Parts: sequence; structure tokens; C-alpha cells
Amino acid sequence: MLLAVDAGGTSTRAVALDESGRSYGYGRAGSGNPTAAGVAGAVEAIAAAAKSAGGTGSLAVIAMAGVRSAEFSAQVCARLGALGWPRVELQHDLLAIFCSGTWSTDGYALIAGTGSVAARVVGGRLDRVVGGRGWLLGDAGSGFWIGREVARAVVAALDGQGEPTALTGRVLDAVGARDLADLVPALYARRPVQLAEFAPLAFAVPDDPTARAILVAASVALADLVATVRVPELDGPVVGGGSVLVRGLLAAAPWLAADLVPLVRDAKVVTVPDGLVGAGVLALREAGVAVGEDLFGRLQAEVSRVST
Amino acid sequence: MLLAVDAGGTSTRAVALDESGRSYGYGRAGSGNPTAAGVAGAVEAIAAAAKSAGGTGSLAVIAMAGVRSAEFSAQVCARLGALGWPRVELQHDLLAIFCSGTWSTDGYALIAGTGSVAARVVGGRLDRVVGGRGWLLGDAGSGFWIGREVARAVVAALDGQGEPTALTGRVLDAVGARDLADLVPALYARRPVQLAEFAPLAFAVPDDPTARAILVAASVALADLVATVRVPELDGPVVGGGSVLVRGLLAAAPWLAADLVPLVRDAKVVTVPDGLVGAGVLALREAGVAVGEDLFGRLQAEVSRVST
Repeated sequence: MLLAVDAGGTSTRAVALDESGRSYGYGRAGSGNPTAAGVAGAVEAIAAAAKSAGGTGSLAVIAMAGVRSAEFSAQVCARLGALGWPRVELQHDLLAIFCSGTWSTDGYALIAGTGSVAARVVGGRLDRVVGGRGWLLGDAGSGFWIGREVARAVVAALDGQGEPTALTGRVLDAVGARDLADLVPALYARRPVQLAEFAPLAFAVPDDPTARAILVAASVALADLVATVRVPELDGPVVGGGSVLVRGLLAAAPWLAADLVPLVRDAKVVTVPDGLVGAGVLALREAGVAVGEDLFGRLQAEVSRVST
Repeated sequence: MLLAVDAGGTSTRAVALDESGRSYGYGRAGSGNPTAAGVAGAVEAIAAAAKSAGGTGSLAVIAMAGVRSAEFSAQVCARLGALGWPRVELQHDLLAIFCSGTWSTDGYALIAGTGSVAARVVGGRLDRVVGGRGWLLGDAGSGFWIGREVARAVVAALDGQGEPTALTGRVLDAVGARDLADLVPALYARRPVQLAEFAPLAFAVPDDPTARAILVAASVALADLVATVRVPELDGPVVGGGSVLVRGLLAAAPWLAADLVPLVRDAKVVTVPDGLVGAGVLALREAGVAVGEDLFGRLQAEVSRVST
């Protein structure tokens, strides 16, 4: 038996499967990311999801973003060991996202959620990663980036420095501010990364010229990110994840989509809701099982079956 | 006798003068800005500068940026009252910068230091102010903005996502980092606004294409800021202050200056080192004295004499 865990910033999902891709149990818990939930909280969530999934076996693969500290690794290994999973492998969530969308071992992955990051995958491993530097240093096209542009556009509109926009009332309401004098201190009183909460406001009014310009610019930035990792000799699929990309840009109304740059519009990006199937693929491969089209399809169906 | 105080984020200057513009004493102390130094520290610095300037009289004018809390106002009035200045007026530093460069009561002011802000001045008062919203929400063309672009360019260069740049070694040295893996956490460990410390690095290598592009973009952003407050019917002087504008963009080598947009290049911006002369002008006017070309010239010469 194998255990696949997708430990995300908001929730953690786990599935117990055998080497044929058949799934036996599913578990779900809160944030399994040490940066978001703290080391103890993340370990607790991963253990809770694993316990719900059930089973015991040779190997657990945990897909997660960000830095894995020695402290986190030690604690999560100990907890899963006690639940009957003596060997634990930590994998990058970008690779799990990629493997959730394709059985190919070569191609590209793009995630745009609160942050943005892209990777080239060669031979089933991350060959090159760009972006993912966090809100202060970049993450162009991410939810933070869109939300900050929304906040700036609203401040400029209220200031008379920018065009009036339908975003203004929505941002004021979201913050509980009446005017510019209320808004600016309210924004500085929050954590900077909370600006990402304004990204859905832009998707809510895509016919507003200001919102539209921000979303088009975000699509350009994400296309640039993929262009940086793309090489002519590697023509694999592009697998996309993250709420901004999957539920936002790629789900946009056609008349917004028509303005998005070709990469996002035409690249036939395979979108995936999370990295759980990919964590399963990585577990199977780590156990020496070749994952081709058939097994991949079975695993997708099985994960879908147990998780709904 | 009148007291003029320019309470800046780095230092505070004060001069005691009479209604003919003659100056009797000068004082200098640390940061007189409550945001930078705290209320107590700012009041202390202003009192120290006032004490060094000496004299007693009818009115003290303090020019300063940002929000003046009731607590700060009460404390600074009490301290200056005890020093023999029973009436204290707080004025916006933008107006003091403007009045440091011209005796005209109409025109424009532009400050680009750590932040950036511009104003239209009509009849000796601030008629319209734009920018100055702080690092998170804008301040385009400011020291923070330039510094953040420098940091991003260096991260991109080290990442292979951007062009190599002469800024890389300078930023790594400034932070004490060896490579990208050191640099990113080091940048997040600092206060975001400290990115402004990298702005001088761009001015140090203006022949570097990356630095040059950042500085040209900064000049465009500052020109946009002035364009927002400019109205055709008001053709007064543009007075510029702040280290990024005065010691940076406007002091740039000619072959950089040639790339700066016309507003910054050709507007014959009158640059001033600080707002101390302007605080004197505002004190004189508040006392009912008309300040024309002659008195303005005398005040400039007097402030220069006592402060050097």
C-alpha cells in the first residue's frame, strides 16, 4: 500500500492506494503547509488526513510548497511512522501538479494562486523553476499581484489620479472603509499578503476596463513565466494549477479570454484542482511502478471516486 | 521673532528669524517625524533644534510630512511653549519645499525621497496632492520603488529570468548574501521599506542597462505624478525636493539625463535641499509679512549663512 498526500496552504488531502492505482480511503484536513499553519499545525493536519485515508504500507509521498525544514521533516516522519508509514518522501508541489495532469515525464507546470511559479519537468524531475519569490519580490500575475494592482487602481481612482472603476465600491466594502482617508490606513493595518483577497474582485467585474487591464497584464506575466522555462526541444504538455489560473483566468468569460495572451488562451493548458493525483503518481513511481496512460487514467478515476 | 522648523525623517533643522528675514540662530537634531522616530523622539528632536536656534517670539512653524496626530500636536506645542514659542503651526512639508524654491504663491511641488508625492499650489496653499501613499500602494519613482525594482532585477538575473546586471554584486554585498538562496530570505527578513537602501546602487551604475531602465522608468513615473496635478491655466515653477530627485535623477550624468523624460529633463525644476527656507516663508506670511523676491532672496542667504 502507498499513501499520497497533497499538503496545501488551505487544506490537506490524502489517499491510500495500491500499486494498481486502486484507492482504499481518503482523508481531508486543514492547512498542511508549515509556513501557513506552523510546523506543529501542518504535521497535525497531515497526520489527520493520513489517519482518515487509513491503511499502512511501505511509502508515503507528501507534495508541498516551500521550504521543508529539518524540524518539519523529522516531526512528520515520526507522526506518519506511528500511523504505519515507515518511509516518507517530501516532493515539490509543482511536480505533483504536473503529474496530476499528465502521465508524461516531460513538460511544463504553472501555478498561479496567491503566488506564481513555473517549472520545466524533464525525466519526471523538476529541471528548472522560476518565480515563486513571494509577494515582495515578484510573483507577477499571482493573486497577490492582481490584488495589489486592484488596491492601487482604487486608490488612484479615489485620488483622481486614475479612471473611475467598478472595483472602488467593492474594495471599500471589503475593507469596511468609506473613503480614501479610511482606506489607506486600513490597507497598511493588514498583512501585505492579504491584498491577494482583492483578486476575486477583479474577476467579478471583467467588463470593467481597469479590472480587464489588470487581468490581461496578469496573463502576460504568467505567459512570461512559462516562456522563461520553455525550451524548443521540449514540447510536453503545460499543466496549470492554482485558483487564479484555474478558477480565474482560464475560467474567464470568452470576451475576457479573447484578450488574454496566446499562451494562456491557446496553449491547451491541462488544469488540475490540486496535486493529489500527482502525489499518487510520484508514490507509484517511487515504488518502482511505471505509470502510463492506463494506470494514470485509473488513478484519476479512483481519486475522484474516493474524494467525492 | 519667528521660528521656522523643518522636521524631516532623517534630521530636523530650525532657524530663528525676524520679520526682515534676518536669522539669529540655527539648530539641528535627529528625526522630527513621528512615524520615523515615534512621538516622543520627534518632539525631542524638534525641541532640541529649537533650543539650539534660540530666541523666543510669537510664532513657530513646523514643516513635516505625514499625519499629525492630536497627541503629537499637543506634545510639540507644550514643549515649544515652554521654550518661549506660545503659538505653533504645523504645515505640510510639500508646501515648505515649494516655498523653499520660490516666492511665487502658485506652482507645483514634487518630492522623491523614500516616497514620492506631488502637489499643485494655488494662492500659497496646497490645492491638490497626489501620491504619497506609501510603499505598498504606490510611490512610483520613489527610492522604495527604485530599490524594489533593483532587488527584483537582481533576483531575476540570479534566477536566469533576467539579464545579468552590475547591480547583482552590489546588492549581494549590501545584504551580506552569497547567492540567490541567501538573498531571498535576507530580503524578507528586513522591513519592506528598507528596499529603498538599494536605490543609490542604481545611481552608482547608470551605464548598466538594467539600472538605466529602472531610473528612466522612475523619471517617467515622477513626470506622470506632476502631470496629474498640472493644469494648463497654472504655469508656475516646479520645485523639487528629496534625495532621489535632487541628488539622484537631476544630478545624473548627462548621458543618463538625456534618456529621462522631458518633464524631469527640461522643466527647469528648481531644486531645494530641504524645506527650511520655506518654513521661514510660511512663518513670515503667517505673521502678515508679504514675501516677494527681495525678502525671499534675503531669507535664502540668511538661512544659508547661519546653517553652514
